[in-house]
Amino acid sequence: MMLNKERMNKVLDKLDAPAMLVSDPLAVYYLTGKWIFPGERFLGLLLKEGKEPVLFVNSLFRFDEEIGVRKVYFSDTDDITVLVKNEIDSNEVLGVDKILPARFLLPMIHQQIARDIINGSPAVDHTRAVKDAQEIALMKESSLINDRAMAQFKKLIHAGVTEKEVADQTLAIYKSMGAGAFSFPSIVAFGKNAADPHHMPDDTILQEGDTVLFDVGCKYHGYCSDMTRTFFYKKEPTEEQKNIYNLVRRANEEAEAMIRPGVRLCDIDSKARNIITDGGYGPDFTHRLGHFIGIEDHEYGDVSQAFTDPVQPGNIFSIEPGIYHPSILGCRIEDLVLVTEDGHEVLNHYPHEIEIIE
Amino acid sequence: MMLNKERMNKVLDKLDAPAMLVSDPLAVYYLTGKWIFPGERFLGLLLKEGKEPVLFVNSLFRFDEEIGVRKVYFSDTDDITVLVKNEIDSNEVLGVDKILPARFLLPMIHQQIARDIINGSPAVDHTRAVKDAQEIALMKESSLINDRAMAQFKKLIHAGVTEKEVADQTLAIYKSMGAGAFSFPSIVAFGKNAADPHHMPDDTILQEGDTVLFDVGCKYHGYCSDMTRTFFYKKEPTEEQKNIYNLVRRANEEAEAMIRPGVRLCDIDSKARNIITDGGYGPDFTHRLGHFIGIEDHEYGDVSQAFTDPVQPGNIFSIEPGIYHPSILGCRIEDLVLVTEDGHEVLNHYPHEIEIIE
Repeated sequence: MMLNKERMNKVLDKLDAPAMLVSDPLAVYYLTGKWIFPGERFLGLLLKEGKEPVLFVNSLFRFDEEIGVRKVYFSDTDDITVLVKNEIDSNEVLGVDKILPARFLLPMIHQQIARDIINGSPAVDHTRAVKDAQEIALMKESSLINDRAMAQFKKLIHAGVTEKEVADQTLAIYKSMGAGAFSFPSIVAFGKNAADPHHMPDDTILQEGDTVLFDVGCKYHGYCSDMTRTFFYKKEPTEEQKNIYNLVRRANEEAEAMIRPGVRLCDIDSKARNIITDGGYGPDFTHRLGHFIGIEDHEYGDVSQAFTDPVQPGNIFSIEPGIYHPSILGCRIEDLVLVTEDGHEVLNHYPHEIEIIE
Repeated sequence: MMLNKERMNKVLDKLDAPAMLVSDPLAVYYLTGKWIFPGERFLGLLLKEGKEPVLFVNSLFRFDEEIGVRKVYFSDTDDITVLVKNEIDSNEVLGVDKILPARFLLPMIHQQIARDIINGSPAVDHTRAVKDAQEIALMKESSLINDRAMAQFKKLIHAGVTEKEVADQTLAIYKSMGAGAFSFPSIVAFGKNAADPHHMPDDTILQEGDTVLFDVGCKYHGYCSDMTRTFFYKKEPTEEQKNIYNLVRRANEEAEAMIRPGVRLCDIDSKARNIITDGGYGPDFTHRLGHFIGIEDHEYGDVSQAFTDPVQPGNIFSIEPGIYHPSILGCRIEDLVLVTEDGHEVLNHYPHEIEIIE
């Protein structure tokens, strides 16, 4: 692992200040390749235009390898504020991370270590939103594992099983396929529960005729996958259910089909939303169409009306339309999509067709 | 669930400001009995001397029940800073939570919503450090479950098993006993791995003569347990190992025996540390003697040289001396202890004797 200068320089270019104190361990990992989880303790990677970066790290997390930054170790009794002050120009503006907690930020403000302190995270977030080749390779592999895992998860479905019993087996399947962890705890929802987009697996027992929704993802070398499929258990869906399912499928596929550099995030959202609204289920599609993803399952950036930026090559986000109608069907179909130079690539390959689990 | 006025008034009494904005979801739970996990979104419980508290909560987490606070709902496009400003006196000092992130705190500072903004968390932390009767009852039950679980965990030990395989079965055992979740992922360490106090379970296979260390805990109605025992597998420990084990045991038991209101935390730490140092293993006891615990596994307050406060009735903390000597033995013995009006009560009952798993 080593400081990624290209990523660092992109962050500094986008920053409205000459220096930035990055404290999110995930952003530190993104920039240096080094995982440090300091818990309640301070962690800071100070990026400065034209200077070597400085990593402030508690001695408890001391490490020997050289990662292209100057390390400043401190103990629990040292004053962080003074250490940071020594490394920056108090006449300049300092960017800090959006997650920097008040217990570290307030002393910096009270001791006036900088002319002003601003939220510098947008510079990091916008850089992270454009994946480089190494990240794209890991994200593709993570989603390939997710495709294979979905085929296995389906096999966990049998008479009498509960949502929790199924969900509890998914991590071992991911790990057997080379994934390191969940992106997020697996969502398994039977029947009406699938009509709650935030449902957590419970003791609900599977019934014939239930829908079976899996919203699942794993991490591969730190990079997340995230996919949703909705199956039917032992019964052909009704015409009304087929109608809803196919609306969601069409919303997913037509939204994906339009993705290419320059298309606005809000317009991708509108494409899917209009299909569902025209089909008569607008009020039952209750969330944004998608979210950016990478080292975290949800990263900065949404496919929603609130984001009017055009997409760029290297963006990776979910496309996950859903219709949540408790008395008929709860259904969501989600893929991850990579924006390429001349179009897009859908990173998930598990089919979209209606599938009945016997 | 309902606002706990007694807890709220204790916080306000301890606060160096007339108002406090609590944003830690665990502290909001402590004060109101309501779990709200807003993820990246803002959550704030504004406590004001002599006024009804105000809960700022995103409409996504709307709830109907009355919990004794005035609710102010907002959407993702609302300006939180303005909402908070409307409810406080900008000529007064405002306490905020130590974890309030920069993305919420910086706009409050730039828009000068208060005369000064201070870290008000010590008032909450010191209140939470003294458990009330309801909390004590839940903590006792949580530790009783942990005692029973330890007896079951021991049965998972057999030839050829790996640390991960054992650790992966612990959650189901806790849940079968009525616990809701882990306090923290179970630590299972075999042989030399037990000499790393931060070891995470891996694919190490159990060998005859290994030590087997369990550092485990569960949550019962939101309240944590945390206990460590070190066993031996199939072989009587050597004299050197027995010596270390018994030093750790004596450090644990003599430190526990001295606990009563008025004794200083640092002196409890010294008692255990001196026993281990006098036994010749001082440098191998590398951490604080204990930590406070409650809704979180690690809460504010340590049993260490850095904390010179006397203990009070209602304090609950761990006593967990250890000796980490890779070539001889890694060993830790940990209990939770409640300070009572006239002494203490050890909340764990699993024996301290040397035990050989066959």
